[in-house]
Amino acid sequence: MTDEYYMLQALKEGRKAFEIGEVPIGALVVMDGKIIARGHNHVEKLNDSSAHAEMIALTSAFHFLGSKYLPDATMYVTVEPCLMCAGALFWSKIGRIVYGADDEKNGYRKYVVPLPPIKEAGVGPWPFHPKTELLSGVLKEESALLMKEFFKLKR
Amino acid sequence: MTDEYYMLQALKEGRKAFEIGEVPIGALVVMDGKIIARGHNHVEKLNDSSAHAEMIALTSAFHFLGSKYLPDATMYVTVEPCLMCAGALFWSKIGRIVYGADDEKNGYRKYVVPLPPIKEAGVGPWPFHPKTELLSGVLKEESALLMKEFFKLKR
Repeated sequence: MTDEYYMLQALKEGRKAFEIGEVPIGALVVMDGKIIARGHNHVEKLNDSSAHAEMIALTSAFHFLGSKYLPDATMYVTVEPCLMCAGALFWSKIGRIVYGADDEKNGYRKYVVPLPPIKEAGVGPWPFHPKTELLSGVLKEESALLMKEFFKLKR
Repeated sequence: MTDEYYMLQALKEGRKAFEIGEVPIGALVVMDGKIIARGHNHVEKLNDSSAHAEMIALTSAFHFLGSKYLPDATMYVTVEPCLMCAGALFWSKIGRIVYGADDEKNGYRKYVVPLPPIKEAGVGPWPFHPKTELLSGVLKEESALLMKEFFKLKR
């Protein structure tokens, strides 16, 4: 399966968040081609500002595998992770991160190195595990549109 | 009560982590002089690399107050928060952060502005809420010693 296929599944998670009034971000953890964990924003529902899609999907993957590290897994997330989620992805030693739309306001790139090929462009050190691969921009228009629709309704 | 008093309570949490073989970091959330949440590392026990003392104490405080923001609360944590916990503290809009020992290896200061009075010394922007106050170094020797003892035993 392609990155686009998994990102479409992550977008489905994002739409679930949209439907319950949460910031519409979705995330998956995939290993050996199988989706082992899903998550979408639960900040409002849980009254927990740390209940981001990535945190929920990571914790679910740890439980599923009985392991606190995910070196052979990929995280798909519709929007650029924030600093907290980037930190959680660091601790997870995840093998690969694929995200969709950039987040100029709250994305981790505000603080640290944006992408491996352009390490010198960032302000601080690479925040992920040294072996973690990163790809951005997969279905970014779709992910950005979902966010735009949500915040248009909120205004 | 003084910051030292609360930090001693956070150290008690850290010792609980020590006793169960977890990296000995403890955290509290205090509001109106009352300890409303406690947490210590649960990474090994939960097989979850994101189960840091601060994350557990924050989530517990959100649940206790039924609020996803903590503008009137103080987080006491024995060791400098990592990038993930700094991000979670940002989202919580916590009023004040007091930490003990510095963490040169995994502390958030590796990436971002260390302390408000020396904003220019950091590599990236201030990671916390603009209104969050920060104090470091409270009982830092005790906190650092607990960590040192733990890693000495691990070797």
